[in-house]
Amino acid sequence: MEGLSELALDHVAQYFSALSEPSRLRVLNILRDGERNVGELAEMCACSQANISRHLSTLAKHGMVVREARGTTVFYRIADESIYALCDLVCGNLAKRLSEQANLLGNVNAKKPRKA
Amino acid sequence: MEGLSELALDHVAQYFSALSEPSRLRVLNILRDGERNVGELAEMCACSQANISRHLSTLAKHGMVVREARGTTVFYRIADESIYALCDLVCGNLAKRLSEQANLLGNVNAKKPRKA
Repeated sequence: MEGLSELALDHVAQYFSALSEPSRLRVLNILRDGERNVGELAEMCACSQANISRHLSTLAKHGMVVREARGTTVFYRIADESIYALCDLVCGNLAKRLSEQANLLGNVNAKKPRKA
Repeated sequence: MEGLSELALDHVAQYFSALSEPSRLRVLNILRDGERNVGELAEMCACSQANISRHLSTLAKHGMVVREARGTTVFYRIADESIYALCDLVCGNLAKRLSEQANLLGNVNAKKPRKA
C-alpha cells in the first residue's frame, strides 16, 4: 500500500466499503459453496430480491462476483477466491482481539480479593 | 468465514467499515514507517487535529492502532502488522482488475477496422 496516490486510496477505501455490509458478506459466504441464482440468495439471506440484486450489483462492480444469464435465470458466482483470504484475515484478527480481551478480563478477576 | 453467526458477520462488516475511509488508510500508510503524534499526522494528512483524532479513535476501537501518552504528547503506532497484508491483498486485486480492463480495451481497439 506504500506510495499510493490519492486516487488509489479512494479505490481501496471503496473496495473495503463494499465489504462493510453484513448482507453482502452473507452472500459471499453462501457463494463459497458454489453459484446461486438471485431467488435462492434472497431466500437464504431472508432478504427481498430487490435488496439482494442491489447488493449483488455492488459486489459485481468491485469484481467480487460474476453474473451469468442462462435461459431466464441469472446466476452469480465468486469471481476471485482471494476475497475469502481477506475475510479470513479479518476473522483471525477479530478472534485474536477477543481472546486478548478475555485474557484481560481473566487477569482482572484473578486480582480481585477473595471474600473470606 | 464459514459458519459465522450474525453477530460475527456484523463485527467483520464493522472492521471493513473502519477501513473504508481514505483518510484512515492514509494514517495507516504513514504509521507503516513508525509511530507519530496527532499533530504530525494532521499535518501529513492535511487534516484538522479534531478530524485526525476522530479517525484515530475509530482505528483504535478496532484494534488497528495503539495509543501511548508520553509526557504531554500522545503517540500512535500500528497494533497489528497484518492490517498491511489486508491492504496489500486489496491492492493486488485492484491492480489485477485494472490490468484485465486494460486488456479488454486493448482487444476492443485491436478489433476496430482501420481507416484506409
